[in-house]
Amino acid sequence: MALPKFVKIVEVGPRDGLQNEKSALTVNDKVGLIDLLSDTGLSTVESGSFVSPKWVPQMANSDQVLAGIKRKSGVTYTALTPNKRGFDNALDAQADEVAIFGAASESFTQKNINCSIDESLERFQDVMHAAKQHNLPVRGYVSCVLGCPYEGYIEPDKVAKVSKALLDMGCYEVSLGDTIGVGTVASTAIMLDAVLAHISADKLAVHFHDTYGQALANIHVALRKGIAVVDSAVAGLGGCPYAKGASGNVATEDVLYMLNGMGIETGVDMDKLLVASSYIQSLVGHNQSKVAKALLAK
Amino acid sequence: MALPKFVKIVEVGPRDGLQNEKSALTVNDKVGLIDLLSDTGLSTVESGSFVSPKWVPQMANSDQVLAGIKRKSGVTYTALTPNKRGFDNALDAQADEVAIFGAASESFTQKNINCSIDESLERFQDVMHAAKQHNLPVRGYVSCVLGCPYEGYIEPDKVAKVSKALLDMGCYEVSLGDTIGVGTVASTAIMLDAVLAHISADKLAVHFHDTYGQALANIHVALRKGIAVVDSAVAGLGGCPYAKGASGNVATEDVLYMLNGMGIETGVDMDKLLVASSYIQSLVGHNQSKVAKALLAK
Repeated sequence: MALPKFVKIVEVGPRDGLQNEKSALTVNDKVGLIDLLSDTGLSTVESGSFVSPKWVPQMANSDQVLAGIKRKSGVTYTALTPNKRGFDNALDAQADEVAIFGAASESFTQKNINCSIDESLERFQDVMHAAKQHNLPVRGYVSCVLGCPYEGYIEPDKVAKVSKALLDMGCYEVSLGDTIGVGTVASTAIMLDAVLAHISADKLAVHFHDTYGQALANIHVALRKGIAVVDSAVAGLGGCPYAKGASGNVATEDVLYMLNGMGIETGVDMDKLLVASSYIQSLVGHNQSKVAKALLAK
Repeated sequence: MALPKFVKIVEVGPRDGLQNEKSALTVNDKVGLIDLLSDTGLSTVESGSFVSPKWVPQMANSDQVLAGIKRKSGVTYTALTPNKRGFDNALDAQADEVAIFGAASESFTQKNINCSIDESLERFQDVMHAAKQHNLPVRGYVSCVLGCPYEGYIEPDKVAKVSKALLDMGCYEVSLGDTIGVGTVASTAIMLDAVLAHISADKLAVHFHDTYGQALANIHVALRKGIAVVDSAVAGLGGCPYAKGASGNVATEDVLYMLNGMGIETGVDMDKLLVASSYIQSLVGHNQSKVAKALLAK
C-alpha cells in the first residue's frame, strides 16, 4: 500500500484538548486559539461541544465561541453533538459539521451513558435525521478502539462493527480513537486490519492520545495502510481522565513534522502553527509538543 | 524482513543522559541510579565517560561511580573513552566495555575536535590497540547520522562509510546516533538502507534523541529492518545542546512499552524500571517518559 500523498489533519485541540485541560479558558481565549489555527492552513477545526454543561463545564461556552470566531473560507468548524438538543444548538451556532460518538467497549458505554453500544447508536438517530434535513455532514467517533479503562482488551471486530454501524447510519467518516493511548504498533495494525476488512481506508481517520508516547509510531502504521486523515491537538492539549498527569492528544506539531519529513502534503504551515502553539501554551501553562518545545526555544 | 524476537536495550541514561542534564549529581546519586538499572534486567548500562572534566564536568566522577556500584552478574558496565588516557582510566575503573565515537558530519567533527572525520578515527587507533591487548570489547558511536547542527543534511553514504571504518578498526557494533533528533521515518529508512547495503543488521544499533518526538516511530522502522539493539535513557534523561529546552534521549520506558506491545522480548522488567525512573526523577526534577508519567501517576 502506497503512502498517501496528502493527509488531512483534523485539529481537535479546542474541543477534545481543552475539554481535558485543568485551566478554564474564556470565550475570548478560545476564539483567539481557533482563529490562529484557522490561519495555519488547517482545513478542519473542532471548535466546541454541545453537551450538558453539567457533564463538560469546559465546553459550556461553545455557542459564544462559534459566534465569536472569524470564519475563514475553506475552513470547516465542527462541533460534537450527543443528542438532538445539542444538534439544534450547534445548528444555531452555525457549526459546519457535527460529530457523534460511539465506543467499541460495552463497559465504557455502560459506565458513561448507562446503555449498550447498540442503544447508544440508536439514540443518535434523531441527530442523523436532523443533520440530513439540514444537509450537515456528520462525522462518527469510535472511542476505546485499542483498549478500555474498564475492560482492557477490545476485540478488533467490535471496532469494525461499531464503525460500520456509524457509516451505515450516514456518517461520512469514522475516526478511530485510542482514547486511553494504550495501543502500540502491533495492536494498531491488528485493529486496523480488522476494520479495513469491512471499510475502505478513505472512510477512516485515526485519533491517538499520546498517553504512552506511542501515537506517532501508530499513526505511521495507519498511513502505511492508506489512512489519510489524522486527528491531533495543537500543543498536545488535553490529558487522560484515566491516568492523571498523563499527556493528551498527539500534538499537531509533531504529526506535521513527521508528515513534512515524509514529503506528505498537508497544507499546514509549521511557523503559523507554532504561533497558535505558543499562544495556547501561555494560557494553559504547558506544551506537550516536542516539536514546539524544540522550535520555540530556538 | 521479520521483526527481531529479542531486542537488547542499551541503557545510556547514566552517561549520555546525565551528561546533558543541568543538575550535577553526586557519586552516590549516580551509583544509586546504576544499581537500580542493573536490577531491571537490562544487560548493558553505560555508566560513565573518561573524558577531560574540562569538557564534560558532569562525568568527572566516573571513576568513583564505577568503583561504587554493586556489580551484578550478567550486566555489562560500559564507559566512553575518547583517547588512550581515558581508556587507561576506564581500565583502572574496571569498565567491562568501552566506546569510541565518530561523527558522520565533517563540520561537526571540525567544530568539536578540530580535525577531519578520518583524522578523528585515526586518533582512536591506540584505544583500539589497547582494548585488543586487554580483551575489552569496543563499541563505536556515529553521531549526526540524520542531520548535523552545523551543516544540516548528512549524506547517508557518509554514515555508511564512517560506520564501516569503525567496524574495520575492530568495533564489534556501531550505534547510529540521531544526535539532534531531527530524523523522521522517511530519512531513517533511507539512511538505514544505505548503511545496511554495506553492514549487516546484527552489527548495528540505533540511538535516537527525541527532540522532535520522532524516536519511537524511527525505532520501529529500524526494527522492521532487522536491527535489534536500541539505545535509550531511563526517564528520557538528557537534553539537546543545540535546542535548549528540548527533550533528551528516547525514554527506555517508552521503548520498552512499544517492544512489550509488539511481543518482542527484552528481559527488562517495567515495574523495576519505573523504580529507577522515579528515583532519577526525584533527583533531576523532571521525567520525559510518557509511560513513566502515566504509570507512576496511577
